[in-house]
Amino acid sequence: MYYVSEETAHRIVTIKDAIATIDQMFRDYARGEAMTFPVVTGQGPDPQTRFSIKSGMFDARRLAGVKIGSYWPQNPQAGIPAHGSTTFFLEPDTGLPRAVVAASYLTALRTAASDAVAIRALARKDAAALAIIGTGKQAWYEVAAAYEVRPIRKVFVAGRSADKAKSFAAQLAKDLGLEAVAAPIPDAVQQADIIITATAAREGLIQLEWVPPGTHISAMGADGPGKFELAPELVAKASLFADVIEQSVSIGEYEVAFGQGLIGRENITAIGDVLNGTRDGRSSNAQVTVYDSSGMALQDLAIGEFALQAAITAGLAVQL
Amino acid sequence: MYYVSEETAHRIVTIKDAIATIDQMFRDYARGEAMTFPVVTGQGPDPQTRFSIKSGMFDARRLAGVKIGSYWPQNPQAGIPAHGSTTFFLEPDTGLPRAVVAASYLTALRTAASDAVAIRALARKDAAALAIIGTGKQAWYEVAAAYEVRPIRKVFVAGRSADKAKSFAAQLAKDLGLEAVAAPIPDAVQQADIIITATAAREGLIQLEWVPPGTHISAMGADGPGKFELAPELVAKASLFADVIEQSVSIGEYEVAFGQGLIGRENITAIGDVLNGTRDGRSSNAQVTVYDSSGMALQDLAIGEFALQAAITAGLAVQL
Repeated sequence: MYYVSEETAHRIVTIKDAIATIDQMFRDYARGEAMTFPVVTGQGPDPQTRFSIKSGMFDARRLAGVKIGSYWPQNPQAGIPAHGSTTFFLEPDTGLPRAVVAASYLTALRTAASDAVAIRALARKDAAALAIIGTGKQAWYEVAAAYEVRPIRKVFVAGRSADKAKSFAAQLAKDLGLEAVAAPIPDAVQQADIIITATAAREGLIQLEWVPPGTHISAMGADGPGKFELAPELVAKASLFADVIEQSVSIGEYEVAFGQGLIGRENITAIGDVLNGTRDGRSSNAQVTVYDSSGMALQDLAIGEFALQAAITAGLAVQL
Repeated sequence: MYYVSEETAHRIVTIKDAIATIDQMFRDYARGEAMTFPVVTGQGPDPQTRFSIKSGMFDARRLAGVKIGSYWPQNPQAGIPAHGSTTFFLEPDTGLPRAVVAASYLTALRTAASDAVAIRALARKDAAALAIIGTGKQAWYEVAAAYEVRPIRKVFVAGRSADKAKSFAAQLAKDLGLEAVAAPIPDAVQQADIIITATAAREGLIQLEWVPPGTHISAMGADGPGKFELAPELVAKASLFADVIEQSVSIGEYEVAFGQGLIGRENITAIGDVLNGTRDGRSSNAQVTVYDSSGMALQDLAIGEFALQAAITAGLAVQL
């Protein structure tokens, strides 16, 4: 059995790698070459803690495994990230343990890569102004991934805390060499070609009337019942895309609009079908496109396998 | 993070350890100090393969984790066991990975220990004749564990293949110093004080009229819909016990009798309540008692934690 540490994953997997890997994974999934199994939510000994268990398999690629993601909300008080992830792979030929891959960094990457794949497929080619709503750790990866797929020149940062928005803007400017400024949500949205939402909101942070024609929105925050970031009226008017249609209407961004009867499953297109060319993506420069990423085990398996192979090649996978 | 290999688990955990650990775990579980989460069944790239994901937590013991069990039915053709198991522990205070424990041997032990705990609680004190139905690898552990808790003097071995029953009897004689003979199922059952069933049957292998008064039966084979080993009439007449009552009527030995309306949940007693003295066990030397073990994550967590602590103490846990 192999073990790949967080440190090794950081050293050998780039955002560019993640985007290529997740793009290919969505194409394979849309062709029916993969399965996912029901997601389980558990808790640790303390009642406010949660862990999720996501599992799946790719038949053509001969991958099967399980991603365990933890959310311990008190961690940040001790200087530890609230989220943690580990992916476990089974040997496809025997079912025996194949690898344990530390996946906290990889989960951040694969999530940002999913949103960037949608931006590359759906945003206007000349989209250069990005609004990022949310200033948490994931927001950094989201901006960095978007920057890989569009010629971003300016970033507007909005969050609940103006101070955090300012310091996050300064960090983006330093790390990525981008012009980045803090702005209230409506201002940020009105000036953007691309909007990424990366919050834990349970309300419509973004109103329909703020969003300019031709905007693309990648909404990543909603990943459980009751969470949403876009006003239902905005969802009702936009062209809708998702990583997993069924999740988008049950635990994702479209749950509320779907529950209100404003949209149906038939209004949502799987991103893999757009990538494969079997369904249309953006059809005009005036259209507002929305992509909901709620995440799935196949992303974890694909990025984990990439990390494992790269670690083996580099001699950095620990053999147990 | 720690890693405990199969080899280490074999070296440091005995059947006696497993019986003590599982006995205590059932007591804790019956006191409400633990939770289990839904079981997921997945498959590998080949359609006949299956893996199960069982998860749970103990609050008082501060344990949380996930057991992944694989069943690759073609493995034996390549000389590899069909079943494999790995247990993953989360740090209770942070949710971060705490340990990966190779658990194929531990799963065999904890399963046999569950049946032995029930034998110790429910079989007659003088029970000395054991019938084992089934000649697979698990059957060996079942006999060895029963031998720890009752003064077994003779073992009757029954299976579909008379040759396999003979060679398994010879192996038991050699390994455990027991008098062991092969016998057809009715003969084995009629001479037994304790019966253990360890088969993958989907039919009543044991008929009511064969079972002498005062017998205890530990039935371990049924662990999925459609599997059972005892005639429903036998289940209807016996005093019933189980590791998890809800599982016993849905995926366990009592599924068929329950489905036929012969028994209700109120006829089944949780073994932990017997161990804690809050419910009665055997009430006479003439009673036939049946225990159904369908298995749960808490057994895996308890035995895995025992192995982890023992490995750390012995300096055999690999630190990653």
